[in-house]
Amino acid sequence: MTRVRVGQPVAERADFVAAEEPLEIRVDGRALTVTMRTPGHDVELAAGFLVSEGVVHDADDIRTARHCPGSDGPEAGNVVDVFLADHVAPPSAGIERNFTMTSSCGVCGKTSIDAVATESRFGVDDDPLRLSPKVLAGFPDVLRSAQTAFDRTGGLHAAALFDGETGEMLVIREDIGRHNAVDKVVGWAVLNGRLPLRGAVLLVSGRAGFELAQKAVMAGIPLLAAVSAPSSLAVELAEAAGLTLVGFLRGDSMVAYSRPDRLETVDSYEAAEPASQAEEAIQQ
Amino acid sequence: MTRVRVGQPVAERADFVAAEEPLEIRVDGRALTVTMRTPGHDVELAAGFLVSEGVVHDADDIRTARHCPGSDGPEAGNVVDVFLADHVAPPSAGIERNFTMTSSCGVCGKTSIDAVATESRFGVDDDPLRLSPKVLAGFPDVLRSAQTAFDRTGGLHAAALFDGETGEMLVIREDIGRHNAVDKVVGWAVLNGRLPLRGAVLLVSGRAGFELAQKAVMAGIPLLAAVSAPSSLAVELAEAAGLTLVGFLRGDSMVAYSRPDRLETVDSYEAAEPASQAEEAIQQ
Repeated sequence: MTRVRVGQPVAERADFVAAEEPLEIRVDGRALTVTMRTPGHDVELAAGFLVSEGVVHDADDIRTARHCPGSDGPEAGNVVDVFLADHVAPPSAGIERNFTMTSSCGVCGKTSIDAVATESRFGVDDDPLRLSPKVLAGFPDVLRSAQTAFDRTGGLHAAALFDGETGEMLVIREDIGRHNAVDKVVGWAVLNGRLPLRGAVLLVSGRAGFELAQKAVMAGIPLLAAVSAPSSLAVELAEAAGLTLVGFLRGDSMVAYSRPDRLETVDSYEAAEPASQAEEAIQQ
Repeated sequence: MTRVRVGQPVAERADFVAAEEPLEIRVDGRALTVTMRTPGHDVELAAGFLVSEGVVHDADDIRTARHCPGSDGPEAGNVVDVFLADHVAPPSAGIERNFTMTSSCGVCGKTSIDAVATESRFGVDDDPLRLSPKVLAGFPDVLRSAQTAFDRTGGLHAAALFDGETGEMLVIREDIGRHNAVDKVVGWAVLNGRLPLRGAVLLVSGRAGFELAQKAVMAGIPLLAAVSAPSSLAVELAEAAGLTLVGFLRGDSMVAYSRPDRLETVDSYEAAEPASQAEEAIQQ
């Protein structure tokens, strides 16, 4: 690579670049999906993907999961074979990455949430998690100091699970794709028999779109916190599912977009009163 | 939403949130894909998606493209119907979002690039574009001042096309998904008969993964610049295709990961000599 600075001599040097490779996930011998991911923790990624898609809910649902043993060559590590237990229904043929469509007219005439949400076996609405904003505000620092690759490449997202009661970090995973990083931590949890993740907090290093809120709900996580902004559909899903969605978790400040009652300084959910559009415009 | 600051009273206020809705793209009456996107410029998004997938290459390849006219209800705008011209081969049934797989064993035993790259009708390797780093360094400021939504929601990515000779910005589009923002600018270009985009620069607000490099090549764009980091597979593809890939375009500094000869301060491609690993480690 070549570093160029306007008005200065050109510097030639090598550089660390975030690794990205395709991973094919096969279920019972059939190719299900391919995702571009950072190699590492691939079996967890496959397991977490299947949780997000509503295919598996427990370690017992997976008979075996391992890298494709029959292949060789430099790309042999880019296939994971998952074999489901006999009692698990195989994923439907039309499954798409992070997305379940039930018909060719899945979106037209339905509400967005109906059309795109996968039903979760685990409810998060009644999760009694309650934690102090101060504890939550400390999580991003823990995430950043645990990140192994970000500082060198500037290209990886991180996702981490915290115990909402003790504040302890349970697991952290990094990936070039935020959704993969989340699948990896959820896969770690399901493979270790920890689903549903009641009382847990999922922290992601960037933004929180619909996909991530969906993954949190599918894993039974009651609180999703993002360092950056959420999307409208993520907020919609969070409200519908009873997920606490926190955005802009920076320094000692944060914004709760749904179910703020899980933060100790907020007395109750019902007490929340939205400000007027005018006030909002000024504050922005 | 609820703003919480550690040790301070809770503030209730509304907030701007980046809009995210599912868009179903139908081709010749058949559902092809669904993407989560920020509503707006949906027809461009559909057209650009079809360029990225290698289905269309010219405005004449598309007979009509419009929002689903038969539907009603609040989600009627979430379907775009594209009808291809008679001479255009319809996309294959197994097409996936930003990804073409030709067999169930597409990844195993192939190199990554072979497995995931879609063949481009337009070569970029011989594009004679050459521009000064100073001009390139000025593009992010133009992008930021043109962005209409980012400052309010903090949740949108932007992609813009620039004329590499005049430095003029041709079009800018925003979306919650970087890949959608790029599909929208490419869609704008194909619908306006501007493909291949010889001599053009594509600037994206965040990182540059494989997907974005692929989209640039499919549209015949010789230079992709990102404000943040590229991925290893993006660099690999850029080298293979002859695309100039610039990352970390910030202030007056930038890093060229491939084909630096298109930057005027770099004498020639062959002159480049990578630094030693030791030097690199120190500089990082």
